[in-house]
Amino acid sequence: MIITEQNILEFDKIYRAAFVNSLAGLKSANLIGTISSEGKTNLAIFSSVIHVGANPPLMGLLMRPVSVERHTYANIKETGYFTINHINKEIYKKAHQSSARYEKDISEFDECKLTPQFIEAVKAPYVEESKIKIGLKFVEEQEIKSNGTIFMIGEIIEIILPDDIFIADGYIDLEKAGTIAISGLDGYHETKRIARLSYAKPGVEPKEFIK
Amino acid sequence: MIITEQNILEFDKIYRAAFVNSLAGLKSANLIGTISSEGKTNLAIFSSVIHVGANPPLMGLLMRPVSVERHTYANIKETGYFTINHINKEIYKKAHQSSARYEKDISEFDECKLTPQFIEAVKAPYVEESKIKIGLKFVEEQEIKSNGTIFMIGEIIEIILPDDIFIADGYIDLEKAGTIAISGLDGYHETKRIARLSYAKPGVEPKEFIK
Repeated sequence: MIITEQNILEFDKIYRAAFVNSLAGLKSANLIGTISSEGKTNLAIFSSVIHVGANPPLMGLLMRPVSVERHTYANIKETGYFTINHINKEIYKKAHQSSARYEKDISEFDECKLTPQFIEAVKAPYVEESKIKIGLKFVEEQEIKSNGTIFMIGEIIEIILPDDIFIADGYIDLEKAGTIAISGLDGYHETKRIARLSYAKPGVEPKEFIK
Repeated sequence: MIITEQNILEFDKIYRAAFVNSLAGLKSANLIGTISSEGKTNLAIFSSVIHVGANPPLMGLLMRPVSVERHTYANIKETGYFTINHINKEIYKKAHQSSARYEKDISEFDECKLTPQFIEAVKAPYVEESKIKIGLKFVEEQEIKSNGTIFMIGEIIEIILPDDIFIADGYIDLEKAGTIAISGLDGYHETKRIARLSYAKPGVEPKEFIK
């Protein structure tokens, strides 16, 4: 089946959003924790977190120009900090609930029954129930001119993670931490590792290894 | 365990890359197909594809400033087109092999034994063995000042996908297409959907539904 851009533009708005969001494949599932300058915490689910660089350690996420996520944006600009918290199977329904349109004076931590956790170096709340938590300092934003979305970049200040999921070569076993994935706007997925593959070199077939 | 930025900066380079790449969670697994103005095809694996917008339909991906991916960048700038091809379990080893450092005059399609497929509207090769293929026109790039990476944005021109994986509300069943996910630099994962969840509204608990 071939679907053209014209077909997409003629789709109903909700249908189109579900469809185009699905095209991005399996997506990273995270809760972004922030706090306003008045001390009000905020929590928002994002499926657009990506790796930006390892040295310095940077991560980015795309913000829509509108909707609930503006609270996240405003807080990051006010305080200069945010947290990225991996969503696991135990909290995925609560995480999903954070996408409801709450007013700015309501904390999604309360509404979603998740626990804010503060650790000294980062002025933003972590999600206690998350197993892999990353604290970041805002460093840069780039506006996407085509639609007004904003690519926000943070430098990693600290990471909190369980002792037993760290592998000898730096790789983190996300399945041990229960980290899940998102599809489309509302699909949640467990994963099962097929394999890790050896570093690719021209003319050498990659080997499977599990450690 | 708490790992600080200072710890990360003291890690060995390869260890650090594996670690920081793991922090982004489960990632979208795609092959980017391009062609040079001289007609040489190129294929590169990316784990940084994200949804940018639905109207107009936009997708983005982050390019490193160095290494093999420059061929992809140069080709996109030359021709104005690229394709995003979901990686499935049948081709994940071949997809991984595309990350080896081949010279510009060598096509990863040949080296990885994947088949270039051209469809009229988009001047870039699709991967025939992929089930979900997206053809895009380059529209914008934003340089991340912090490390010189480039966020490239394309407008979706056409999508090729099997007839039977399209769901009534626009959602695409990625598992039916065999689409897999990536962790870190070299982990490949199948997924199993836990559920889809109903649209979140304040004060209403999300309901699971599968369709």
